[in-house]
Amino acid sequence: MKKQLGPSDAIFPVPAALIVSGIKEKANIITLAWIGVASSTPPTIGISVRKQRYTLELIRKTGEFSVNFPGASLYKQVDYCGMTTGRKTDKFKETQLTPIESKKIKPPIIKECPYNIECRVSKEIIIGDYIHILGEVLESHVDLDKVDNSKRAGFDMSKIDPLVYFAQAREYWRVGEKLGDSYSVGNQIKKKS
Amino acid sequence: MKKQLGPSDAIFPVPAALIVSGIKEKANIITLAWIGVASSTPPTIGISVRKQRYTLELIRKTGEFSVNFPGASLYKQVDYCGMTTGRKTDKFKETQLTPIESKKIKPPIIKECPYNIECRVSKEIIIGDYIHILGEVLESHVDLDKVDNSKRAGFDMSKIDPLVYFAQAREYWRVGEKLGDSYSVGNQIKKKS
Repeated sequence: MKKQLGPSDAIFPVPAALIVSGIKEKANIITLAWIGVASSTPPTIGISVRKQRYTLELIRKTGEFSVNFPGASLYKQVDYCGMTTGRKTDKFKETQLTPIESKKIKPPIIKECPYNIECRVSKEIIIGDYIHILGEVLESHVDLDKVDNSKRAGFDMSKIDPLVYFAQAREYWRVGEKLGDSYSVGNQIKKKS
Repeated sequence: MKKQLGPSDAIFPVPAALIVSGIKEKANIITLAWIGVASSTPPTIGISVRKQRYTLELIRKTGEFSVNFPGASLYKQVDYCGMTTGRKTDKFKETQLTPIESKKIKPPIIKECPYNIECRVSKEIIIGDYIHILGEVLESHVDLDKVDNSKRAGFDMSKIDPLVYFAQAREYWRVGEKLGDSYSVGNQIKKKS
């Protein structure tokens, strides 16, 4: 038995990713849960922001942004960056997060986030009150102490200790136990049938 | 210190959502991790599929699809639906998942998934080898036994026991402990500054 909740936008889990736009001492951070992979070839990330966001102005100036994935321990900084506008506040200063140089784009990446992506805007799409920005991935970075070449991703997800967000519930969680490997556990059903 | 991994499409965490397209005994399931919220007003979900996918043919026939969020216990069925093409296989039959009628669209939702969304396609965007499909949310459903009106989302996320996917690592996980509430824990930084 199901209850209808109306046209809700809840999907889960989602990242609570830190998007950096702008350059040098003008660089700004915003927390975004509205983010997804839009293509693998070419690797492209879609993010969505309200039309009036300061981040949108800054992204349009350079046509670039970085996406920084926090570990679970950063959840308070992540929340702060989602509650505050960069028009009036230097969020790098307030959170004591550290901007470091990107390799391919002008906006910095965040040192304390274990995984970082550099994107160049390839398209903007208006959807109601939001701008859906597609950014082609030019480079990605992982902390050296998370590197594990025995892993398919090239790093160990359990060392990342990723932050998990439930936007509709407004709750931050961390991950628990690993259940299994994809393109593998499904074979148990395949063999039965 | 960071290591560069090249232009990777890895973002995390992501859902491993079951997308249902087509109608009645022709309905098909595909597992997609390339999914994100594209707008809140109007509520719009973006999904991305390779151009040659059977799901794309089926979505285009009705202009509709459902998105079904599995609990952690369904990870083997989820994996199976990502490994198999619906051109040759009845995935509802093989997984013993149950299609039930949607309220606003022709494709069914999946009974065993605790949360379900009904979408109507509003736009298609070509990005390289992928079609990025934007679907406006017309209705959402949650299992009655997960309903909790004291929660902001209208249901209890811990009762959902959501499946967490790391696409790049190809690993299924479940969630662990709750860390805190958003639009709240960030105040601890705000007050300090």
